[in-house]
Amino acid sequence: IRGFIRFKYISIYFCMNNWELSDEPETLDDILISCRATLKYAIKTAHPRYFNQLSTGLDMVGLAADWLTSTANTNMFTYEVAPVFVLLEYVTLKKMREIIGWQEGRGDGIFSPGGAISNMYAMLLARYKMFPEVKEKGMSSAPRLVAFTSEHSHFSIKKGAAALGIGTESVICIKADERGKMIPSDLERRIIEAKQKGYVPFFVSATAGTTVYGAFDPLMAIADICKKHDIWMHVDGAWGGSLLMSRKHRWKLNGVERANSMTWNPHKMMAVPLQCSALLVREEGLMQSCNQMQACYLFQQDKQYDLSYDTGDKALQCGRHVDIFKLWLMWRAKGTIGFEAQIDKCLELSEYLYNKIKDREGYEMVFDGKPQHTNVCFWYLPPGVRYLEDKVEKMKRLHKVAPVIKARMMEYGTTMVSYQPQGDKVNFFRMVISNPAATFEDIDFLIEEIERLGQDL
Amino acid sequence: IRGFIRFKYISIYFCMNNWELSDEPETLDDILISCRATLKYAIKTAHPRYFNQLSTGLDMVGLAADWLTSTANTNMFTYEVAPVFVLLEYVTLKKMREIIGWQEGRGDGIFSPGGAISNMYAMLLARYKMFPEVKEKGMSSAPRLVAFTSEHSHFSIKKGAAALGIGTESVICIKADERGKMIPSDLERRIIEAKQKGYVPFFVSATAGTTVYGAFDPLMAIADICKKHDIWMHVDGAWGGSLLMSRKHRWKLNGVERANSMTWNPHKMMAVPLQCSALLVREEGLMQSCNQMQACYLFQQDKQYDLSYDTGDKALQCGRHVDIFKLWLMWRAKGTIGFEAQIDKCLELSEYLYNKIKDREGYEMVFDGKPQHTNVCFWYLPPGVRYLEDKVEKMKRLHKVAPVIKARMMEYGTTMVSYQPQGDKVNFFRMVISNPAATFEDIDFLIEEIERLGQDL
Repeated sequence: IRGFIRFKYISIYFCMNNWELSDEPETLDDILISCRATLKYAIKTAHPRYFNQLSTGLDMVGLAADWLTSTANTNMFTYEVAPVFVLLEYVTLKKMREIIGWQEGRGDGIFSPGGAISNMYAMLLARYKMFPEVKEKGMSSAPRLVAFTSEHSHFSIKKGAAALGIGTESVICIKADERGKMIPSDLERRIIEAKQKGYVPFFVSATAGTTVYGAFDPLMAIADICKKHDIWMHVDGAWGGSLLMSRKHRWKLNGVERANSMTWNPHKMMAVPLQCSALLVREEGLMQSCNQMQACYLFQQDKQYDLSYDTGDKALQCGRHVDIFKLWLMWRAKGTIGFEAQIDKCLELSEYLYNKIKDREGYEMVFDGKPQHTNVCFWYLPPGVRYLEDKVEKMKRLHKVAPVIKARMMEYGTTMVSYQPQGDKVNFFRMVISNPAATFEDIDFLIEEIERLGQDL
Repeated sequence: IRGFIRFKYISIYFCMNNWELSDEPETLDDILISCRATLKYAIKTAHPRYFNQLSTGLDMVGLAADWLTSTANTNMFTYEVAPVFVLLEYVTLKKMREIIGWQEGRGDGIFSPGGAISNMYAMLLARYKMFPEVKEKGMSSAPRLVAFTSEHSHFSIKKGAAALGIGTESVICIKADERGKMIPSDLERRIIEAKQKGYVPFFVSATAGTTVYGAFDPLMAIADICKKHDIWMHVDGAWGGSLLMSRKHRWKLNGVERANSMTWNPHKMMAVPLQCSALLVREEGLMQSCNQMQACYLFQQDKQYDLSYDTGDKALQCGRHVDIFKLWLMWRAKGTIGFEAQIDKCLELSEYLYNKIKDREGYEMVFDGKPQHTNVCFWYLPPGVRYLEDKVEKMKRLHKVAPVIKARMMEYGTTMVSYQPQGDKVNFFRMVISNPAATFEDIDFLIEEIERLGQDL
């Protein structure tokens, strides 16, 4: 197994040094050499010891479905050119809304190119709902709008605000508790404060499964506040939304049924091949009126079929990649219980990791208590750092440990785990597990490998 | 061949009537049945008589590359998880900038999920260049911004303006001539008019290959005006940009080298599998500063490699699908001259069509002169309409001809061509050819098929 994600930058450079694009064609043999080299130097994201990102693994049915999708080579914008895929998207979105708990699965939605775009759609819809005139007249026709999200939320909320002309300063970061959950009382305080300044709170993005800690914001309490102040409630469940598929874990999202919109990325915890992100919206028709431009060359009104299947005008995109088939086919192949089983297993693995390291010498947890998602955040303190008495020096040294161990992991090619600082906390490891192929042995290996690679630091 | 895109809605419904997603898994046999049904009822977009969209065909090397991409199942946001793909994107974007004519291929760029998003990026960059404070402070920190594009341009310019908080009313539509090209004098007049009103012109989107007419705006004259008034010049070459690959046709884009940004979709005229859209930007570093949020969990500053290869913070997306490999591999397999040959061939076919129908009885061209791109726009007047004297009645009847013929094409499943009205012109056919598998015989067939299906109308 050693070397499976061996990371030799220099090798890549040398191996691919004739990668330039030229006027003349290469031979088919050369093309095959390029393919082999590309696969050889690719990071093996399907390997059960690849813990680096929220999207891992490689489901065989999902892969087959993606190959079929490539072969069909069509576009989601009209029913006319993608009749089956449009219908499967309809069925799947309805099923997802039922699982959220919206009445009879009613509502709307779309598959978009990733969670960041889904979150941006939600913000766009919230603005349109409150100030539809912004579509024609721009932001100058609205008062100063402010959005709220926790300090642990994903950066895409700010990216969206920057793009939509709202501005990052109008995204108010709400305090999170030591587990990374938004503190509802702080949310309400900041809403009232904003109103007193004459600003208009229009959007609260709660997170179901934060990127680093895997925290679930208290959705019920947030829903109460949004209702009281009449603010659009969005749930960014890009990472944690899939826990809705698990009878054991779905309580962590209690209250999501009261949200106005939700981002849910099956390409993360459900291990659907990249990309597969859904935005679900409770109100029907809003996406269409928010985004439509009625291009007459594409959405002809005198077509011979039910025009509601032409989903293109709901989107910001014109052409839209077919992301639905792999999710639909995997769902058929596994059933909901199959997804549930693989999600439960990943959570079990992370609890196993937590239990193994919480009292182990040299490890320190970033926050107390059992993980809520598969995120396990910890420091590894090598012997040379462990017993330092000078706290400042210790933190300074500890900050450098994770990057060095990570670099060594990549050099040896044995495993990959992410690390980052957060607030005043120095670099720590963030383990996540979303690949159902991972085993208890892989977790054991990881712990020993960190110790092996870090013991001299 | 008959029936290749036979369009039986009812069949789909019946065949797929057990498409629901359930708790329990299906058998592998059932999964295979679903796959077969999906392919059976898919529209055969690779068929040489599918002329319905700008993206057609199925290149075998491109398909193989897309399958490899699915198998690698990774994400473009960091070099760490997609080292080869990030480097190939770098090489390809540089090559594309060289072809545009930017000095030494310098500049920036990204592959985005389609031309609409690429155009939105360009507008976002133009705004950031002029008013960087909008990123933090929102549109209220800027004066009223106005954008300019021709009345024949793609609807994504307005969609982008709506999303970015600029507003569709601030997109000023410039008159086009009878061939669909923007009239530069009208552009300048409207810019001066906007300035007189106290608005700030910040963005001109010229189109290289309009969606319906295939017109190329006069880029040189537009560049002069943009320079004079210090406005960001974008070229939406989603459809026509690929003509830069042809020594015979690239003069149509003369002046593009003076643009600040360009959208170019290899998934259209270069027949790369969907999706593959590039935004190219002349100024280096602007995308990064415009969009970056420096998420510390992803873009760690203490990584062991050159951080400029972490392209994720340039994007609005967080995760980003790997769209590069199919283009890169096709380019290697064909060489630039291979793309040139297939583009030249498609243009030759459209000229053949034009020559065959321009004087043929029953046909009328929507505009005079040889097509500039592969778009050929025409009416077919069935005998029952052809000799009507009452002009109003004639137009009313003619308006209904194309939708009926189109519906019949789909019912028989013999060919597919798009139609639409435009301005005061009643429904006409828009032929486009982007599939290098199309032949002169397919063009002959199309003409006869339209006559066969429409003769009784």
